[in-house]
Amino acid sequence: MTTPKAREEAVLEAVRERRELVNDAIPEELPIQRPERLYEASRYLLDAGGKRLRPTVLLATAEALADVEPLTTDYRTFPTLTGEPIDLMDAAVSVEVIQSFTLIHDDIMDDDDLRRGVPAVHREYDLETAILAGDTLYSKAFEIMLETGADPSRMVDALDVLATTCTKICEGQALDVTFEERDAIVPEEYLEMVEQKTAVLYAASACLPAILQGADQETIDALYGYGLDIGRAFQIQDDVLDLTVPSDKLGKQRGSDLVEEKQTLITVHARDQGVAIEDLVDTEDVDAVTEAEIDDAVAELEAAGSIDYANTTARDLVDQGKRRLEVLPNNEARELLCQLADYLIERGY
Amino acid sequence: MTTPKAREEAVLEAVRERRELVNDAIPEELPIQRPERLYEASRYLLDAGGKRLRPTVLLATAEALADVEPLTTDYRTFPTLTGEPIDLMDAAVSVEVIQSFTLIHDDIMDDDDLRRGVPAVHREYDLETAILAGDTLYSKAFEIMLETGADPSRMVDALDVLATTCTKICEGQALDVTFEERDAIVPEEYLEMVEQKTAVLYAASACLPAILQGADQETIDALYGYGLDIGRAFQIQDDVLDLTVPSDKLGKQRGSDLVEEKQTLITVHARDQGVAIEDLVDTEDVDAVTEAEIDDAVAELEAAGSIDYANTTARDLVDQGKRRLEVLPNNEARELLCQLADYLIERGY
Repeated sequence: MTTPKAREEAVLEAVRERRELVNDAIPEELPIQRPERLYEASRYLLDAGGKRLRPTVLLATAEALADVEPLTTDYRTFPTLTGEPIDLMDAAVSVEVIQSFTLIHDDIMDDDDLRRGVPAVHREYDLETAILAGDTLYSKAFEIMLETGADPSRMVDALDVLATTCTKICEGQALDVTFEERDAIVPEEYLEMVEQKTAVLYAASACLPAILQGADQETIDALYGYGLDIGRAFQIQDDVLDLTVPSDKLGKQRGSDLVEEKQTLITVHARDQGVAIEDLVDTEDVDAVTEAEIDDAVAELEAAGSIDYANTTARDLVDQGKRRLEVLPNNEARELLCQLADYLIERGY
Repeated sequence: MTTPKAREEAVLEAVRERRELVNDAIPEELPIQRPERLYEASRYLLDAGGKRLRPTVLLATAEALADVEPLTTDYRTFPTLTGEPIDLMDAAVSVEVIQSFTLIHDDIMDDDDLRRGVPAVHREYDLETAILAGDTLYSKAFEIMLETGADPSRMVDALDVLATTCTKICEGQALDVTFEERDAIVPEEYLEMVEQKTAVLYAASACLPAILQGADQETIDALYGYGLDIGRAFQIQDDVLDLTVPSDKLGKQRGSDLVEEKQTLITVHARDQGVAIEDLVDTEDVDAVTEAEIDDAVAELEAAGSIDYANTTARDLVDQGKRRLEVLPNNEARELLCQLADYLIERGY
């Protein structure tokens, strides 16, 4: 039995190894070309960092499906289930490019100043360039996916997943905006929003290799479900971490969701328990809130059982997601996907 | 020999007939669904009007290729060159949806208040919703194109055209932004920018039916070239009309391009002839400029031969585009595509 710490180390190493390959591929797939300022802005967040969790899910799922030992097969000429090779790295870069496009536009919409420790694109450049950089990444994601060289009918299915995923992300973001103006959100509504805004891109990352490699529909559906489950768990854990991780480790003010009155599974539950969420923190200015205020608010949320509720919900989703992986061959890559699921809710930040 | 006026009437009638069919299809392909505000904002400009010139090009090109009498064949079950039917209306709506997405984001970038006689989406709704509405239309265009039911390998080629077209539109818009900060633009640079920003969507509209119907590469390339030619001519004519059409007919202040110091083929040519473009109009406020100031400026541009130069360039492009149509069967729909090309530079507004 490995310890959680040892497990986390193993996952982080697996993520790191794939991240390096993805990081090498990004400038190849998205070179800085004319007009340079547009492409520099498009690459800005991609180059600033990121764990590349979604590409890791995509690449590891492909390894599990192909039943190959992890990291022994070139992702650029990766075997499908019918033999002919595809460029799987293109698919991995494509989902990361979609992720980056949504971050650029989200930062404009939320008027956030910082992302990955650097200025948001609309701060580093300007609003015009940030909108255009996101729009460029959007179509580039399709162009890059089109380069995998997969069989046309599989390619059509993959592009369909990519397009519907983008639509759902927009719908989820729009729901999130309406939630900010509403009080009585029930947990199901919150989870639906998170599914659309965050989880669908994990779902796409997990099922795209199955589609491109030619797996059967049952496998594709199970992997999509795995992605939805771990993606929702990931977002819930993000909400917990916002309350529990020291600001310096978090890279932003702890409790900022409370200050900004963002709906999370924790506040949705607490309100249902009779907690007056809007009174938990007095200020609406993230720079003005004190650690003591946040401590008191967190204590009240803990007393209402809301943090436990969020943790339990995330754990249940992860366990459900892991069970769905039984459609895959029992191999090292599948084990990695299980560990990755655990990591998403056990990670400290 | 028909008169230009009679020809224009015939073209307008052909556009009107197809526009009504496209207008019926838009709510079918893009219904208002949850979250309603997002979809209402996405539909706002589409519902506000528009000539549907790009869908008309697409539908008429398909009719010419299939060698059918215009408007006698259901676009929803349109014959390909290999017999099996496709839903061509989906392709027509898809390009119009792309056009609408670019208008919504362009209006944000240019901070324009009005479009098609109604407030821009970011004015009628808000910045967040306008960004998201554009993003939603972006992926919906791909989803709608995926519904044509075309053979997968043709579908892959069609989606490739759609994606690269969107990328080029972004690149063209980015070039346009950099031009605003530069003086010495040569005509070739201006035409390259217009090609990317405006003409590629006409090119896509003309070549997509050929791809979806299974035409050969020579035909696809010729139709793409026709679209590029007439799209550039269309934009040049737009620049001419901005100077020559009375404000009330134009729907905005005549000469606003001069006031806002936008680069057009006319100003690029005039500067080359030694005209001090920045001194043509004193004010930078569209609401403060007088008709007399615009009259003087236009007279100076005419004296420099710049308006003639723009007209000649547009005419040459249209003639070149029409010659490319010789790859098509000689039929009524091809004649319409020729008339449409003429209309783009003969139209009064």
